[in-house]
Amino acid sequence: MKVLFLNGPNLNLLGTREPGVYGRDTLADIEAQVRERAAELGVEIDFRQSNAEGQLVDWLQAAREGIDCVVLNAAAYTHTSVALRDAIAATGVPTIEIHLSNVHARESFRHRSLIAPVCRGIIAGFGKDSYRLGLEAAVRLGQASA
Amino acid sequence: MKVLFLNGPNLNLLGTREPGVYGRDTLADIEAQVRERAAELGVEIDFRQSNAEGQLVDWLQAAREGIDCVVLNAAAYTHTSVALRDAIAATGVPTIEIHLSNVHARESFRHRSLIAPVCRGIIAGFGKDSYRLGLEAAVRLGQASA
Amino acid sequence: MKVLFLNGPNLNLLGTREPGVYGRDTLADIEAQVRERAAELGVEIDFRQSNAEGQLVDWLQAAREGIDCVVLNAAAYTHTSVALRDAIAATGVPTIEIHLSNVHARESFRHRSLIAPVCRGIIAGFGKDSYRLGLEAAVRLGQASA
Amino acid sequence: MKVLFLNGPNLNLLGTREPGVYGRDTLADIEAQVRERAAELGVEIDFRQSNAEGQLVDWLQAAREGIDCVVLNAAAYTHTSVALRDAIAATGVPTIEIHLSNVHARESFRHRSLIAPVCRGIIAGFGKDSYRLGLEAAVRLGQASA
Amino acid sequence: MKVLFLNGPNLNLLGTREPGVYGRDTLADIEAQVRERAAELGVEIDFRQSNAEGQLVDWLQAAREGIDCVVLNAAAYTHTSVALRDAIAATGVPTIEIHLSNVHARESFRHRSLIAPVCRGIIAGFGKDSYRLGLEAAVRLGQASA
Amino acid sequence: MKVLFLNGPNLNLLGTREPGVYGRDTLADIEAQVRERAAELGVEIDFRQSNAEGQLVDWLQAAREGIDCVVLNAAAYTHTSVALRDAIAATGVPTIEIHLSNVHARESFRHRSLIAPVCRGIIAGFGKDSYRLGLEAAVRLGQASA
Amino acid sequence: MKVLFLNGPNLNLLGTREPGVYGRDTLADIEAQVRERAAELGVEIDFRQSNAEGQLVDWLQAAREGIDCVVLNAAAYTHTSVALRDAIAATGVPTIEIHLSNVHARESFRHRSLIAPVCRGIIAGFGKDSYRLGLEAAVRLGQASA
Amino acid sequence: MKVLFLNGPNLNLLGTREPGVYGRDTLADIEAQVRERAAELGVEIDFRQSNAEGQLVDWLQAAREGIDCVVLNAAAYTHTSVALRDAIAATGVPTIEIHLSNVHARESFRHRSLIAPVCRGIIAGFGKDSYRLGLEAAVRLGQASA
Amino acid sequence: MKVLFLNGPNLNLLGTREPGVYGRDTLADIEAQVRERAAELGVEIDFRQSNAEGQLVDWLQAAREGIDCVVLNAAAYTHTSVALRDAIAATGVPTIEIHLSNVHARESFRHRSLIAPVCRGIIAGFGKDSYRLGLEAAVRLGQASA
Amino acid sequence: MKVLFLNGPNLNLLGTREPGVYGRDTLADIEAQVRERAAELGVEIDFRQSNAEGQLVDWLQAAREGIDCVVLNAAAYTHTSVALRDAIAATGVPTIEIHLSNVHARESFRHRSLIAPVCRGIIAGFGKDSYRLGLEAAVRLGQASA
Amino acid sequence: MKVLFLNGPNLNLLGTREPGVYGRDTLADIEAQVRERAAELGVEIDFRQSNAEGQLVDWLQAAREGIDCVVLNAAAYTHTSVALRDAIAATGVPTIEIHLSNVHARESFRHRSLIAPVCRGIIAGFGKDSYRLGLEAAVRLGQASA
Amino acid sequence: MKVLFLNGPNLNLLGTREPGVYGRDTLADIEAQVRERAAELGVEIDFRQSNAEGQLVDWLQAAREGIDCVVLNAAAYTHTSVALRDAIAATGVPTIEIHLSNVHARESFRHRSLIAPVCRGIIAGFGKDSYRLGLEAAVRLGQASA
Repeated sequence: MKVLFLNGPNLNLLGTREPGVYGRDTLADIEAQVRERAAELGVEIDFRQSNAEGQLVDWLQAAREGIDCVVLNAAAYTHTSVALRDAIAATGVPTIEIHLSNVHARESFRHRSLIAPVCRGIIAGFGKDSYRLGLEAAVRLGQASA
Repeated sequence: MKVLFLNGPNLNLLGTREPGVYGRDTLADIEAQVRERAAELGVEIDFRQSNAEGQLVDWLQAAREGIDCVVLNAAAYTHTSVALRDAIAATGVPTIEIHLSNVHARESFRHRSLIAPVCRGIIAGFGKDSYRLGLEAAVRLGQASA
Repeated sequence: MKVLFLNGPNLNLLGTREPGVYGRDTLADIEAQVRERAAELGVEIDFRQSNAEGQLVDWLQAAREGIDCVVLNAAAYTHTSVALRDAIAATGVPTIEIHLSNVHARESFRHRSLIAPVCRGIIAGFGKDSYRLGLEAAVRLGQASA
Repeated sequence: MKVLFLNGPNLNLLGTREPGVYGRDTLADIEAQVRERAAELGVEIDFRQSNAEGQLVDWLQAAREGIDCVVLNAAAYTHTSVALRDAIAATGVPTIEIHLSNVHARESFRHRSLIAPVCRGIIAGFGKDSYRLGLEAAVRLGQASA
Repeated sequence: MKVLFLNGPNLNLLGTREPGVYGRDTLADIEAQVRERAAELGVEIDFRQSNAEGQLVDWLQAAREGIDCVVLNAAAYTHTSVALRDAIAATGVPTIEIHLSNVHARESFRHRSLIAPVCRGIIAGFGKDSYRLGLEAAVRLGQASA
Repeated sequence: MKVLFLNGPNLNLLGTREPGVYGRDTLADIEAQVRERAAELGVEIDFRQSNAEGQLVDWLQAAREGIDCVVLNAAAYTHTSVALRDAIAATGVPTIEIHLSNVHARESFRHRSLIAPVCRGIIAGFGKDSYRLGLEAAVRLGQASA
Repeated sequence: MKVLFLNGPNLNLLGTREPGVYGRDTLADIEAQVRERAAELGVEIDFRQSNAEGQLVDWLQAAREGIDCVVLNAAAYTHTSVALRDAIAATGVPTIEIHLSNVHARESFRHRSLIAPVCRGIIAGFGKDSYRLGLEAAVRLGQASA
Repeated sequence: MKVLFLNGPNLNLLGTREPGVYGRDTLADIEAQVRERAAELGVEIDFRQSNAEGQLVDWLQAAREGIDCVVLNAAAYTHTSVALRDAIAATGVPTIEIHLSNVHARESFRHRSLIAPVCRGIIAGFGKDSYRLGLEAAVRLGQASA
Repeated sequence: MKVLFLNGPNLNLLGTREPGVYGRDTLADIEAQVRERAAELGVEIDFRQSNAEGQLVDWLQAAREGIDCVVLNAAAYTHTSVALRDAIAATGVPTIEIHLSNVHARESFRHRSLIAPVCRGIIAGFGKDSYRLGLEAAVRLGQASA
Repeated sequence: MKVLFLNGPNLNLLGTREPGVYGRDTLADIEAQVRERAAELGVEIDFRQSNAEGQLVDWLQAAREGIDCVVLNAAAYTHTSVALRDAIAATGVPTIEIHLSNVHARESFRHRSLIAPVCRGIIAGFGKDSYRLGLEAAVRLGQASA
Repeated sequence: MKVLFLNGPNLNLLGTREPGVYGRDTLADIEAQVRERAAELGVEIDFRQSNAEGQLVDWLQAAREGIDCVVLNAAAYTHTSVALRDAIAATGVPTIEIHLSNVHARESFRHRSLIAPVCRGIIAGFGKDSYRLGLEAAVRLGQASA
Repeated sequence: MKVLFLNGPNLNLLGTREPGVYGRDTLADIEAQVRERAAELGVEIDFRQSNAEGQLVDWLQAAREGIDCVVLNAAAYTHTSVALRDAIAATGVPTIEIHLSNVHARESFRHRSLIAPVCRGIIAGFGKDSYRLGLEAAVRLGQASA
């Protein structure tokens, strides 16, 4: 099984600013922890980040080949991108929406997710553990469809 | 560590109707699976269901004594109950909101959660696995605050 | 054939206050008239009232056993209860929404019914005759599905 | 006693298309059933249909002479016609709003009825039986005011 | 100078019902008073009423020939008819919107006029005097453009 | 009979700027024309202008003594002043709302009048003739209540 | 193949007023051009106009016999007529919505089309060429379903 | 004179959590202070709390016997319960709405009170003194109606 | 201790009009009753009224010197004045919002208070007793902060 | 004449997924058909696709040189991109908005087009024929401006 | 060149309260700094403050004589005053809107400016430097129009 | 001190189209003027433009190294980009939002700025001088924090 973790805009800054909201771990720390857990579970991992909406769409499209599940932290694009939504629907690869923070406890424009309706499930508010839980959920989805 | 699973209205009917939306497992099946995983993790479980908003508030309040984390599937009351929200805020026990289905892919009145802003995190859309993931998340919260 | 009449909050006060809006008959008067007509039609009747949302959900769930049709005057909960809506959908027992008054000629928050979309039909504005018409409609539904 | 049944736009197509929504009976079938029941009840019936809003207003106005109650299926004009609403209010003839389908389970623009606030009562969702129930309700209204 | 008075749906019932809202004068009474004042002012009058939106559009279009000003009481169609609005804009004949009652003191859906933005001016709330004032205003418009 | 004309903010600039919207007559020109017509009708006139909401409220209150009707061009305060509305309602002196321009053909915030619901009638869009028509309407109101 | 062109209110005035919005061609000019192109394509044409909503509904209903496709410029009724929408859905004849102007560049109430969701496709903004393109699209639809 | 103090959900937790919002007094402290003041005023007191909406409705209904005034802190149900509103209207016992905190300075969903329109008056923001002021107001209401 | 009572627009007319809404007492009667109670409590009173928003802002600003609490019946300006809100926030003098009538039972534009979020508490609906209760509340606030 | 066809995000997946919504033709198939028809018409074609909003803006800007008309299927960016709108307005090259599906029959967020107000015309719902019709329309626009 | 600085309600309290929002400089300090910079630039300054909307309107009107540019900090009236907007439009003197704080980072009712659409430009969020920048902008406007 | 000027989509077309809205200067002209003024002030400048949201986010992130202040004309992305907002918040570099035109006098979707709440201040409507004023403001911010 192979899981693609896609990270949206500004997540490359994790751990360097606003630790009160996002925690002190860098994206590299999170990737390391995810890889460690994936190794235990026998799952292959691809882990990417981009600030560009079009790049994220490209990677989602490419996931049709060889990816069993996408764990997507679309960050700001969660709330503004119909293009990501359409990419998820068009590729048909099961996708799990994750967030570090509890988006429902923040500004009201973060309460609306354009991609949630086409995702399998949503995990938000657990900091770096949102990634770990996303991985666990992806594995369960894989087992259920196997 | 002790985790309270609270289940709101109509969840006692799980597995008997609308399997397309909610799956074929009964609430007893889910409880059994949660207890099995909890045993592996060395966590004590309390698992309850009620159709009455006031009963759920009473149980949340009682959680101040001896409960480390609440995993709450408030079902219909997610969208209408300020009383549950106030109970979560007043007791201060860390609470995780879970849902069997992806509420964002259903009727628009299910997109608004009154309790989400006072919960630590949210897990939705993974069927019975939402409970298992809720348990994993609760354990991680407990480790983080220990 | 057996029909369950469920009455929501404050309907136990019927006939004692606000006759201009709700008429002078008590709920007992209405029950008597419904029972009389049911006897003519050879239909068995169960007739209940509660001020508690959870109790009404419990009774709706119990209707899965032995009830052919529910005639539901949810009163105030018509406009606020997702739990009743989910109970109707989950049990699958055909349900008819009734109201004594014409809710559309009253305050705007009474124009929205959360339960209407999952009911078979709606009868409103005929005072105590809304119950009688609800019974007639229930019998016709029973004949159609027989 | 004399009851006028008014039918709005496209109801003349009943039974020929969209039986899933509206049933297989033609408007002539419904009229025959209504006339049969009216004969039992000793009630005189007038039964008309038009696709033109102005024609329906004309007929409502004419009902001031010799009509005791109007049973109105305004169809599409339910949601758009202030003219029909004003005609009902201006003539003062008791009017009952009926619908074949459960309008609250359809598109949101069908949830608003401009005529409901000036009607005595509403019956919706029972297919052709909505007409029969409308007739029963009209007779009860006549008895109450007699 | 020639002025066309157009009257919309249900105005033919004036004086016979709801005198509290619309006064006791019939439309014929109002026409007589308007004709009397028009004679004093040397103005020719055409005075028509219809319940049909299409008929009113036809008459507005015909006003391009020989009519200097239209005084329009569109009644219910004021709030729902884009067709009347487009007709006024298309013919280019100066049009004055009048109402018997103060529409802003009634239901909120009567506060929006679809035709007001394409009319020269608006007179509302003076009962039958709204017609007389409309005539005076029409004459002043005619003098201004002469 | 005595009629008070009250003019709100910026009307003292009439005729000096934006003739395309408001015409070339100054407020003094309009007052002169109103006084001329009032003399013909045997009506006494008081004619005032202020940029201050409080001053306009004071004048409306004073109208309880000796004023039969107020013709009010509240200008900008039409859309923002609950104080003027309450003053009109509290004094009980019949009040006619007038506007030089057709407010419904301008910015959307000018479509809402806070004072219209407590005025007897509304005249808008006839330029300086709005004042003359307001006077005619005031006289008719006086005759009707005499 | 036979195509029915239906034209709604005020389109009979085309070419005589507001050429800036609608162009200089009369409806007869447009019909002639459509007929010319139809002859080239071997398609039979019926071309009608009415200001009456009910008449347009009647013609849509009649299209069930012998018409393969309707090209509908509903003009003002596009934005207000549920009756036309229901007629299109009820008859089942493939319908193409066209407009002379780009309705999305005009007043906001013209941005909502009540009929678009039940039409096959939409063509707007090409002036008289909207008709020609509508004909081409109708022919393609006919070929696709043949 | 007898006054019923009704307390809604989570008020039993007062003084134990969130003192910044609700103060340090427990509900028992508040009851003691109210009873002390009531003794001075010669007023009998009943003082109750429940987390269940249905229980609160039951108590409101029972107030028809022997209670002169209800002082109601409905807490969360203030914003969601039509059932409490209907109970207040149906019993006819004068009811005063109170709140410990200034609800208008909190989340926007707390700005709407469903029960305010059927209460005599509202007191909010004075902490435990809201209860004392509610008692004073109740006594004055009693004197006014005596 | 010194308390400033500020009264907004049209309150100088109290007792002379609309007794059904506001009671029969004049503002002078209310002032006398407040002064009587203040004397009992040993509190100094300043009592003022103005129809001008700017004057009320001036008085609020002056309250920084020597005033311990403001009791403010802002009347119409409650719903429209950001200036009063900013003045309350800027001066920092504790302010209590009062109303004679229950504003939540009146027109919807009276349900929004711009000043409530910066006031300590709110008292509404008790007629002249709202002033007396405001005084009692002010004294309690003074004791709490002393 | 030279026409630029611009295709937005996910259109490169056409034909491979969701044929029920978008048909079975790939974007290459569509391009081939467009080129074939263009050859008949003697029109030069440029045909491009990108998932990146910025790339589409770049191409639109470059169209100022040598492109007579743009046919734009902006896909998801239709509903979210002010940048594309501004690019169309800034370049001044006539642009035609096209869609494969009838966007008005899909989710409500697809009903709003940010680019429609600055396009010449709109064609939607005809599948691959939307491109062919877009080409025909472009040619007509070119002839009209020639 | 002469520039008028107009300051709205509560700005006379600057520096005495809420320094976290508005800074520690008094309005006199700001005026001194503006005058110093104006002297360098050879610009004459008039600098005024009022809490009264009507007074601000009067001063804006007077600016038609001898003032080249107005720099307006309307404070609270920014969000509520159509009268100020109309005054700016009517006088035609170029006006620059300034704010000390970043109004878009505060309460949502401060995000709407009624006067912005008729101002030349907007400067907000720079504390006392907003005045200095306003002066610089005014001088540039003067040079551009000279 | 070093200031980064970032320019969003379509600003590279400045001076070539729509001079009525944006003026005749090219972006190169503006850069030259900004550089000239910066030289006077002893400030280093970086000046960039991109049509791609992701590129702008990248540049904002890079500003953490060596940039003291960002002057950002986000153009179309002002109204749609949460990613830019998050980048500004995450980097913590003081940012000033500027616009050439007065966005509040244009289409309503341009009235909302997603980035304004996280910027220090806003300057809009002064054409190329918005850049110069942005530079002056940046320098003052630098001096204040130095």
